[in-house]
Amino acid sequence: MSTTGTTQLEQARAGIVTAAMARVAEREAIAPERVRDEVAAGKLVIPANRLHLQAAGGVATLDPCGIGRAVTTKINANIGASPVSSCEETELLKLRCAVDSGADTVMDLSTGGDLDEIRRHLIAHATVPIGTVPIYSMITGKPVEELTHDDILDGIAAHARQGVDFVTIHAGILREHVPLAMRRKLGIVSRGGSLLAKWMAHHGRQNPMYEAFDDICDVLRQYDVTISLGDGLRPGCLADASDEAQFAELDAVGELGRRARELGVQVIIEGPGHVPLDQIEMNMKRQQRVCDGAPFYVLGPVVTDVFPGYDHIVCAIGAAAAAYHGASFLCYVTPPEHLGLPNPEDVKAGCVAFRIAAHAADVARGLPGARRWDDQMAEARAEMDWNRQFELAFDGETARRIRQRDMPADSDYCSMCGRDWCAVRISKELKSQPAEK
Amino acid sequence: MSTTGTTQLEQARAGIVTAAMARVAEREAIAPERVRDEVAAGKLVIPANRLHLQAAGGVATLDPCGIGRAVTTKINANIGASPVSSCEETELLKLRCAVDSGADTVMDLSTGGDLDEIRRHLIAHATVPIGTVPIYSMITGKPVEELTHDDILDGIAAHARQGVDFVTIHAGILREHVPLAMRRKLGIVSRGGSLLAKWMAHHGRQNPMYEAFDDICDVLRQYDVTISLGDGLRPGCLADASDEAQFAELDAVGELGRRARELGVQVIIEGPGHVPLDQIEMNMKRQQRVCDGAPFYVLGPVVTDVFPGYDHIVCAIGAAAAAYHGASFLCYVTPPEHLGLPNPEDVKAGCVAFRIAAHAADVARGLPGARRWDDQMAEARAEMDWNRQFELAFDGETARRIRQRDMPADSDYCSMCGRDWCAVRISKELKSQPAEK
Repeated sequence: MSTTGTTQLEQARAGIVTAAMARVAEREAIAPERVRDEVAAGKLVIPANRLHLQAAGGVATLDPCGIGRAVTTKINANIGASPVSSCEETELLKLRCAVDSGADTVMDLSTGGDLDEIRRHLIAHATVPIGTVPIYSMITGKPVEELTHDDILDGIAAHARQGVDFVTIHAGILREHVPLAMRRKLGIVSRGGSLLAKWMAHHGRQNPMYEAFDDICDVLRQYDVTISLGDGLRPGCLADASDEAQFAELDAVGELGRRARELGVQVIIEGPGHVPLDQIEMNMKRQQRVCDGAPFYVLGPVVTDVFPGYDHIVCAIGAAAAAYHGASFLCYVTPPEHLGLPNPEDVKAGCVAFRIAAHAADVARGLPGARRWDDQMAEARAEMDWNRQFELAFDGETARRIRQRDMPADSDYCSMCGRDWCAVRISKELKSQPAEK
Repeated sequence: MSTTGTTQLEQARAGIVTAAMARVAEREAIAPERVRDEVAAGKLVIPANRLHLQAAGGVATLDPCGIGRAVTTKINANIGASPVSSCEETELLKLRCAVDSGADTVMDLSTGGDLDEIRRHLIAHATVPIGTVPIYSMITGKPVEELTHDDILDGIAAHARQGVDFVTIHAGILREHVPLAMRRKLGIVSRGGSLLAKWMAHHGRQNPMYEAFDDICDVLRQYDVTISLGDGLRPGCLADASDEAQFAELDAVGELGRRARELGVQVIIEGPGHVPLDQIEMNMKRQQRVCDGAPFYVLGPVVTDVFPGYDHIVCAIGAAAAAYHGASFLCYVTPPEHLGLPNPEDVKAGCVAFRIAAHAADVARGLPGARRWDDQMAEARAEMDWNRQFELAFDGETARRIRQRDMPADSDYCSMCGRDWCAVRISKELKSQPAEK
C-alpha cells in the first residue's frame, strides 16, 4: 500500500499495481494489470482516502472497491441526519443496514445535528468507501452567501483529514447555466446546486467551487480523495430531462474531469435524476463521450413522477437501464424519496431494489461470470432443493419466511401448484423417461 | 351492444363500432373508429364475454377494456386458490385488492377448492375482464392422461357460460417441441404446458388442445371469449431464455393466432417469462413479427433469478422494458413468486410495481397524453403543494403517511432538506428575482 503521497491514478499511470488495485482485482476476479490500466485511463476509480486505507487516526480499515465499466456495477446508499431528525446512533444503524443489504459505498448527507461527529462516527465504523457533500458543513449556521474561498478549502480539507473517500463538488454549475434552469418546470432540485446558484445570484460572480477548482484538487490529491463532480442541474421531473441546462453543465463537468485527472485526482461524474426510459440510453452514451469514459454515477434515474412512496421501484427500472447502457455507479432511491428521509427499513428496501438493478444490468451487459449466480439458482430450482435456493438467494431469510407462510419447511413442493401439478416435478419425470413411447 | 352472435372482431371487420369499442375509445381518449380498425386488424382486443358485457346470468357488468399497442399498457393480476390454501372470501378480497390497486384484468388460476364456485363468485363481482386457464378444472380429481377431446370442449364451454372473458389455451406446445425443452436447465415451468407434455408423452400423440383447436374456437366465438395462446414452453430461468423450444412454440402460436382470427376469435399471445434485460427488445419484436402484431401478454419478464422475495421489483424492470419495446399486456409478479401464493398485501405490491412499469413505458413510447400526469405532479412539486401531490400520487394515502412520519401535515417543507436548504424553495426565489444583479 502506497504511502508516497501519490494517488491511485498517479501510481497506475506510473505502471504500479497498488495493494488497493490488487484487492479490487481479487474481488472482481479480473487481472490486477487490467485494474491498473483502467484506473490509469480514468475509467475506473478506487475511492480510498489514504487514511481510511491505512486505518490511520482511529478509522476502520477500508476494503477497497472499484467503480467503472470493467467491473460489476456498484450501488451507493445515501444516509444522513437532517435538521428535523438527527442522531448518531440512527445513522450508524443505517450504515450497518446499508452494508448488510449490499451497499458498496455509503454517502453521509447529514444536514442537521453535529455534522463532524456523525461523520467521524461513520468513518470509524465503515469498511466501505464513505462519500460526503462538503458544502453542507461549510455553511452550517450561516447563510450560503457568506461562503468564501477559504471556507471551501478548509471545509474540504476537514473532510479529507477525517478519512472521507469521495466528495461531491458542484463545480460544474456555472453562472451562465442558471438562467437555462430557470426556464424549467422545476428549476434546480439539487441542494448543492441551488445553494451555489443562490451564491452566484447574490454576488454576481462565477461558481466559487469552479474558481477554486485547482486548489480543491490539490487538497483532494493529498489524501487521494476521489472527486465526484456533482450535477447541480440534474432534472427534477420528466419534463425537464435532457434539456439545455443539464447538458451545458455536463460539458463543464467533462472539462473539470479532465482537469482533475491532470492534477492526479480520481474522478466520478454525477448524473440524473428524472429521465424517461426512452432517454436513458442517449444520456449514458452522451456522458461516456463527453466525460472520456469516466465512471457515471446516476441518481435513479426516476422514470415516472407519480409514484411517491414507491420510488425505489420506479428508480430500479431506471437504474437497470442506466447500468445496462453505461452507468457504473447507482445511487439508490428509497421509498420515502420526495417525501422524507429513509429509516433503516427504507435503507434496506432501497439497497435491495438497486442490487437487483445492478445485477440485472451486469447479466445483460454480459459481464463475465455475472450469470453464474442465476444459473446456480436455476439448478437448485430444477432439483427442487429449497435449502440451496435460500442459500443462493440475495435475501434468503426473507425468501424462507415467505415460503414458510404456507408450507412446512420440509415439504418437497410449494403452494403455487401443489404437489401433483408441479411443472418442475413433471419436467423431471419427463426427462427421466425414454424419449417417447 | 351487439347480441347478434358475432364477436367484437367480426363486427369491427364489418365496419361496426360497438358499444364496447366506443367505451374503450372513451377510456383511452382516442377515436372510436381507431379502436374499431385496430380490433379489425387483430392488434387490439376487447376481452368481453357477451354474458359479462350484458350482465346476464347474475354476473357483474363489465367495463370494457382494450388491450393493444394503440392504447395504454394494461396489467393483469393473477389470483386463485391452491390445494394448500383455498377460500372464496380470500379470493374475492384479492380481486377487490387487485382492482383497487390498478389491475386492468384479473386471472383466476385456482387449482384447489371448489373451482366452479370460486370462478362464479369472482365473475359475479368483477367489472374488469376475468381470465382463466380451463385445463385446471378439466383435470381436477383425475390424472391428466385421462383428458379427452370432449373434456376439453366441455370444460371450456363451462367457463364461457359462466362469463369468463379470456382463457389461456396451451395449444402451441407441440409434441415435437417437448424434446427441445428437455435439453434445458429447467425444462417446462408452465403448469399447463407440463401437464400437456405429460399427456403427449403418455399417449404418444399430438397436443389435444392443438387437435381440437377449431372446435375450441367455435365455442369461444359463441360467447366472444378472447383466446390467450399460452406459452407452455416459456423459459424458467435466464439460461433457458430465447431458446429453440421457446421460438418453436412461438411460431406454432403465430399460426394458431391467424387461424383463431379467421374463425372470428379475438387473440392474445402469451410470452416469457425469464429473459435477461438485453434479450427483451429482440423478444418483443420477434413476437410482433411472428404474430402479426397481436397483443403480447408477458409474465414479468424476470430479469434475474436470484432475488426470490423481491420478484415484483425484478419483474417491474423487465415489464417496463417489454412494454416499451412491444408488449401491451403485463402479467404482474408478486413478492412470493417462486416461493408461494400471494396474499392480499402481495397482490397490492405486485399491482403497484406493474402500474409503475406500464406507465413508465407509456411515457417512454410517447403515447399521447401519458406524460400529462407526471407534468401535473412536477407542477405541484414546484408549488410545494403537498395536498395536490397526494391527490395526484398513484397511492396518495401511502405517500401522505410516509411524509407525516417526520413532519406535521401543515408544514411547508419536508424532512429531506429542512426549510432553509430546500432546493425547490431556493429555485422559486431565484425565479422571482431579476436575472442577476
